[in-house]
Amino acid sequence: MSKRVGAATILMENKISVTSFSAVGGKKEGEGPMRDCFDYIDSDDRFGQNSFEEAESAMQGIAMQNMLEKREIEPGELSMMFGGDLLNQCIGTSFGVFDFRVPYIGIYGACSTMSEGLMLAAMSVDSGAGDRVAAITSSHFCTAERQYRMPLDYGGQRTPTSQWTATASGALLVERGQKPPYVRAVTVGRMEDKGIKDANNMGAAMAPAAYSTIKRFFEDTGTEPGQFDRIVTGDLGSVGSRILCELLHRDGIEIYDRHLDCGRMIYSEEQDVHAGGSGCGCAASMLCGYFLPQIRDGSLKNILFAATGALLSPTSTMQGKSIPGISHLVWISGES
Amino acid sequence: MSKRVGAATILMENKISVTSFSAVGGKKEGEGPMRDCFDYIDSDDRFGQNSFEEAESAMQGIAMQNMLEKREIEPGELSMMFGGDLLNQCIGTSFGVFDFRVPYIGIYGACSTMSEGLMLAAMSVDSGAGDRVAAITSSHFCTAERQYRMPLDYGGQRTPTSQWTATASGALLVERGQKPPYVRAVTVGRMEDKGIKDANNMGAAMAPAAYSTIKRFFEDTGTEPGQFDRIVTGDLGSVGSRILCELLHRDGIEIYDRHLDCGRMIYSEEQDVHAGGSGCGCAASMLCGYFLPQIRDGSLKNILFAATGALLSPTSTMQGKSIPGISHLVWISGES
Repeated sequence: MSKRVGAATILMENKISVTSFSAVGGKKEGEGPMRDCFDYIDSDDRFGQNSFEEAESAMQGIAMQNMLEKREIEPGELSMMFGGDLLNQCIGTSFGVFDFRVPYIGIYGACSTMSEGLMLAAMSVDSGAGDRVAAITSSHFCTAERQYRMPLDYGGQRTPTSQWTATASGALLVERGQKPPYVRAVTVGRMEDKGIKDANNMGAAMAPAAYSTIKRFFEDTGTEPGQFDRIVTGDLGSVGSRILCELLHRDGIEIYDRHLDCGRMIYSEEQDVHAGGSGCGCAASMLCGYFLPQIRDGSLKNILFAATGALLSPTSTMQGKSIPGISHLVWISGES
Repeated sequence: MSKRVGAATILMENKISVTSFSAVGGKKEGEGPMRDCFDYIDSDDRFGQNSFEEAESAMQGIAMQNMLEKREIEPGELSMMFGGDLLNQCIGTSFGVFDFRVPYIGIYGACSTMSEGLMLAAMSVDSGAGDRVAAITSSHFCTAERQYRMPLDYGGQRTPTSQWTATASGALLVERGQKPPYVRAVTVGRMEDKGIKDANNMGAAMAPAAYSTIKRFFEDTGTEPGQFDRIVTGDLGSVGSRILCELLHRDGIEIYDRHLDCGRMIYSEEQDVHAGGSGCGCAASMLCGYFLPQIRDGSLKNILFAATGALLSPTSTMQGKSIPGISHLVWISGES
C-alpha cells in the first residue's frame, strides 16, 4: 500500500521501476542540442501523414511502439495506460494509441501531462492495480500553435516571453522491478493562479505552481535540495525559471545550482525560440531521452521531475480569464 | 493493495465508501422526470454568471460545496480530487474547482468522466494514496453545443439520433468507510471504434465501448447480469442503448430487463430531446442524485455504473475521422 505523507505526497512502498522509455522528436528538435536524446527524429514534422493532427498521433504511435520494443513486450501485455495531450479533447492521444488496444485512462494536465501520467502509473503499479502501466504524451508545434494562438500562415510576430511548442513525444513503462530508475515518491499538484492573463507568457503563469509543488514536496518528505542532483521543471522557459528560483529563494530554498528546465534545454540560443520550448512533448522527451537514461546508467542519482501545465484554453483567454498553472512532481532515483 | 483480476478489473480490498454526493442541474433538467434528484436547480442555466463557461464552472462549484457540506468537512480535508469536463482544455473544471485549493488531477474521458473519476478515486483510497478523494464533472448545453456543433443562435435542425447535452454536474467523495454505497470493483475501459463518423449519433459510436467493458467485467469477475439490480450506462440514449443490448445478446448476455441509460432517464418524451440526454453531467447527476441515494437507503443492492464517452473533437470530425468510444465501469454495492 502506498504511504501518504504530509499534504500531498505519496511514498512508494515497493520497488517501482521505469523499465522502458522512448523519445521522438521533429525536425527542429533534431537540429537542437538534444538531438542525441531522441530515438527517432522526423525529417519534416509530418510523420508521413496528411494533417498535422494525424502527424502528432503518428508520432505518439512511434514512441509507444519503440518503448514496447525496447522492453520486448507486446501491447497486450500492458495492464493499462495513462495518456493525454494539448489538443482539444486530447485527440492526439486517443487516435495515437487506439491501435494498441490497451485499457486507456485519459488525463489532462496540459504540459504537466508526463509527470501526471508517470505519477498515476507509479501509484497504480505500487498498489497492484496494474503490473505494467504505460504513460504517454505529445505536442506538435503545428497543431498547438493554430489551436491556441494564430493560423500558422499568418506569421505573427512572437513576443519575447513566448515559448516554442516542441514537436515531440515521450512514452514510458512502469513495473515493479529491481533496476533503476526507480520512482520513490510523487507529489500531487495544486492549481495556482497569480493573475497572469498573457497566453504568451506561460512561464510566469506556471512558475507559482512549480514553486508550490516543489516546496510542498520538501515539507512533506523532510528532504532538501542538496539531496537531489537535479531539480527539473518543464517547461517554464527562461522567464518562468527565474521566477521559480526567486520564489523558492525567498523561502530560503536554494535550487539555482541544480535547477534545469526542459524548456531551456531542448533548443539552443541560435534556434531563436525566445523564452524556450514548451508543450507536453518537451518535458516528456527530455525525461525519456535525457534524464531517465542518465539515472539508469548511474550518472545521475536523484532527480525531482516537476513538469508544469498552464490550464488555459483559447476561450478562457478570450474571455479575459487568468491562467491557472499546475505541476505534479515525481522523485526518480537510482536507488529504491 | 488492490487485486487485479482478468484483463482489466481491479477488486477493492478495503471497504471503500462513497460517503457524500451531490447533483446540480439546469432549468430543463429541473422540468424533467428526475427533478427531485437534484440538490440544486438553476432557474436560467446562467448560475448568476456572465458567460456560459463561467456558468458551468459555477455549477461545479455548487456541486462540490454541497457535497462537502453534506459530509460536514472543509475542502482542506480532501486528500486530492479528480475532475474534468467536455470543454476544450477542461476549463469548466479548472476554473470550477480552483477556489477549493485541493490537490487536483485532471482527467479526460468525455461523457465517461464520472465513472473514470470514481474509478480513480476508489483506487486511490483503496491503495492508501488518499484518505478522502473527490471526483467531479459537469456539462452545460450552451457551452457544449457551440463548441461541438453549431452557434446556439443558428437554430439548426437536430437529427433524430442526436442527443441533448445536459446542463448538470455531479460531485462525490470516496473514503474508507462502514456505510454503503461501497465500490467493490472497477474495470478500466478500452477504446472501441466501429467506424461511426456522425457526430450527431454518439450513442452508436459509444455503444461498442460499453459492450466491450461490460462484457470484460463479467468475464474478469465471473459474475453475470442477474447478480445486479441495474446495469447503468450513460449516455447511450435510445439508439445506443438498443445497440448495446443487442451486442450483448449476441454473446448470450441478456441485460434488457435491468439496463438503464442515464441519457434516457434525465428527460421525458415530451421534452423533445430526440435520442436522449448526454454530456458528462448527465451520467454524473443521475449517479449522484438517483442511484447512489437508492443504494444508500437499501432500495438497490448492486449496480454496474458504466458511463460512456465519445472521444471526438470538432477537428477530428471535420477531418473525417471516426469516433472512438470509451467506457469505464464501477461496481457499486450495498454490501462491502
